Amino acid sequence: MTKHSPRVGVIGGGQLARMMTPPAINLGIQIKVLAEAEGSSAQLATSMVGDYNQLDVVREFARGVDVITFDHEHVPISVLQALEAEGVNIQPPSKALAFAQNKLHMRQRLSALGLPMPAWAEIRDAASLDDFIAANGGVAILKTPIGGYDGKGVRVVRASVDAKDWLENLASFGGSLLAEEKVDFVRELAQLSARTPSGEFQAWPLVETIQENGVCSVVLAPSPEATAATLQTTAAIAKQIAEALGVTGVLAVEMFEARDGRIVINELAMRPHNSGHFSIEGSVTSQFEQHIRAVLDLPLGSTAPRAAHAVMVNLLGVDEQNNFVQALDKALAAHPDAKVHTYGKGARAGRKMGHVTVVADSAEHALAEARGAAAVLLRG
Amino acid sequence: MTKHSPRVGVIGGGQLARMMTPPAINLGIQIKVLAEAEGSSAQLATSMVGDYNQLDVVREFARGVDVITFDHEHVPISVLQALEAEGVNIQPPSKALAFAQNKLHMRQRLSALGLPMPAWAEIRDAASLDDFIAANGGVAILKTPIGGYDGKGVRVVRASVDAKDWLENLASFGGSLLAEEKVDFVRELAQLSARTPSGEFQAWPLVETIQENGVCSVVLAPSPEATAATLQTTAAIAKQIAEALGVTGVLAVEMFEARDGRIVINELAMRPHNSGHFSIEGSVTSQFEQHIRAVLDLPLGSTAPRAAHAVMVNLLGVDEQNNFVQALDKALAAHPDAKVHTYGKGARAGRKMGHVTVVADSAEHALAEARGAAAVLLRG
Repeated sequence: MTKHSPRVGVIGGGQLARMMTPPAINLGIQIKVLAEAEGSSAQLATSMVGDYNQLDVVREFARGVDVITFDHEHVPISVLQALEAEGVNIQPPSKALAFAQNKLHMRQRLSALGLPMPAWAEIRDAASLDDFIAANGGVAILKTPIGGYDGKGVRVVRASVDAKDWLENLASFGGSLLAEEKVDFVRELAQLSARTPSGEFQAWPLVETIQENGVCSVVLAPSPEATAATLQTTAAIAKQIAEALGVTGVLAVEMFEARDGRIVINELAMRPHNSGHFSIEGSVTSQFEQHIRAVLDLPLGSTAPRAAHAVMVNLLGVDEQNNFVQALDKALAAHPDAKVHTYGKGARAGRKMGHVTVVADSAEHALAEARGAAAVLLRG
Repeated sequence: MTKHSPRVGVIGGGQLARMMTPPAINLGIQIKVLAEAEGSSAQLATSMVGDYNQLDVVREFARGVDVITFDHEHVPISVLQALEAEGVNIQPPSKALAFAQNKLHMRQRLSALGLPMPAWAEIRDAASLDDFIAANGGVAILKTPIGGYDGKGVRVVRASVDAKDWLENLASFGGSLLAEEKVDFVRELAQLSARTPSGEFQAWPLVETIQENGVCSVVLAPSPEATAATLQTTAAIAKQIAEALGVTGVLAVEMFEARDGRIVINELAMRPHNSGHFSIEGSVTSQFEQHIRAVLDLPLGSTAPRAAHAVMVNLLGVDEQNNFVQALDKALAAHPDAKVHTYGKGARAGRKMGHVTVVADSAEHALAEARGAAAVLLRG
């Protein structure tokens, strides 16, 4: 019998939905995107434009697909719960997503699981924050439980007065804030994995992420310094989290390697993640293909690397003029191994507008070529 | 200054236009397809549905893009010439495409260039065909100069009476037929390359193609038996053809390796080609990305292999039921290295509906896995 090809619906028209489109086309999966506005990054796959905060909008979108998944974690849990109650297939499910949306609940749950964490505390007043700061070397990372990403909703504080405005508006953050130890780290790591509703699990090799101003700048795959034991440990952490929280699709676990040797969990993302863009060219199965396979409960693909090393360099907007198209010809001419990705976004300083990946046997060559191509594009 | 990202227009909504879509998305190129009908393989990129035989339809399509290129070679040369006269950028240009559309003109031109060819003759009557058959071992391949592909418009003849119907209707074939030596070949080869309007040229390593019933079935990349000298020779042939005929974009040169050692040219295609599908996973730059870069006159990418071997197996329709979705889960579960591609086409016996590629260090492993995954999908 002829069977319709599986239909995946993605809420959000950003670059992650955009990058899910090529593997969907290749594999013969129908992809439909609910975008916030016309002309989004995921324009080609957009089948509907509307507000994902509105239950009726998401319900209508859900009618035309076999599963709903996400480009971002901003869809209200209440909307997802209502649809799940109506039988809509949502992956990852709301009960898992809740932990990606709320950093405080994530800390509570992962602590209960005994997973390695920085010191943290729930903050309900200035006194408890000052106590936490005093107990943690005179500094803390203070986070709003909901809504922060790429450095937003995060503040370094040395006294409660540094967070006076937040503390005076606790109700708008759900009644409390999250204070975390400012980890003295030697590097940042990310463990990418995927899990299906049936329980199949696959991890990619651990990567190192280099951040600039709180935003991912460079990813080295695999992490150059990681020992076999570290690789095993971080993959096991991802598996434990995915299984305990019921995560499906791609899970990114961001971690710090502390100077004292601890590896502690920083943040979770339950969707394809900037730290996994290297996998488009660097892995037999990219995070975007794997995410689609996983949320459709199809068997997962091999996460083996295609070469010894992959390096990804982000293209962050420099101004309102350079959209990384101006120097595309120069970058391609000078760097024939570089795979340049641009997301079709308008130019804006600091915006994630594209990335460059180079896959090579030599880590030095991959880094030099990826940085070289990015530098040409950034000059415009 | 913000610059619009390049816009490529593809005439034809088949699987080749479909497979140009992922690299366009990745690279940030806008792709628009003029499809023959709604619901084509290239549906996501389709911006217009219409008849490519109509000048006004193609003219309207051309207004929204920076360059026009092709999914197939069926657009009338007269339509392309009229648009070129109006200043429309068409790559490959009509003067080159004319040789892909007309096999007789191709033989005449390549013979004039001194390129290695099977014996051939223009046939205007039964007597000249019988003479050619007598001079070539009692058999000939008879072809209509225009309109044949995948075994259509091609006939094996042992006497002119075998082509009585064609000979009585010569006018409908432009006044003559093409007779060719039936080459006693040990294998079939394909040399894939790309050239830009500015003259940059890149070749992929020679591949071996295994045909069944006149249709490509398996591609082995690189060709297992080819010596370094052969690789050099065939790449040089492709370069000479591309330059002499003014080909831009991807050029596929299909060749026979004869039992007597000759390598002779069989057919030309001036577009991405079934023999190059392996390059999606097998090469740093796929034929689809390279075609888009080439027709936009962007610098070409590296054609280096990602691993020692790539094997592609076509998924040819078996009946009107199996659309290769039924057993997708089984195929992916049993073959995690296999990259399955389906083209979103309705099921029909003999139809090219998808393919499977496996990239590996071992040729045997790649072939076994690709054949294994295809077998699961074919069983349905």
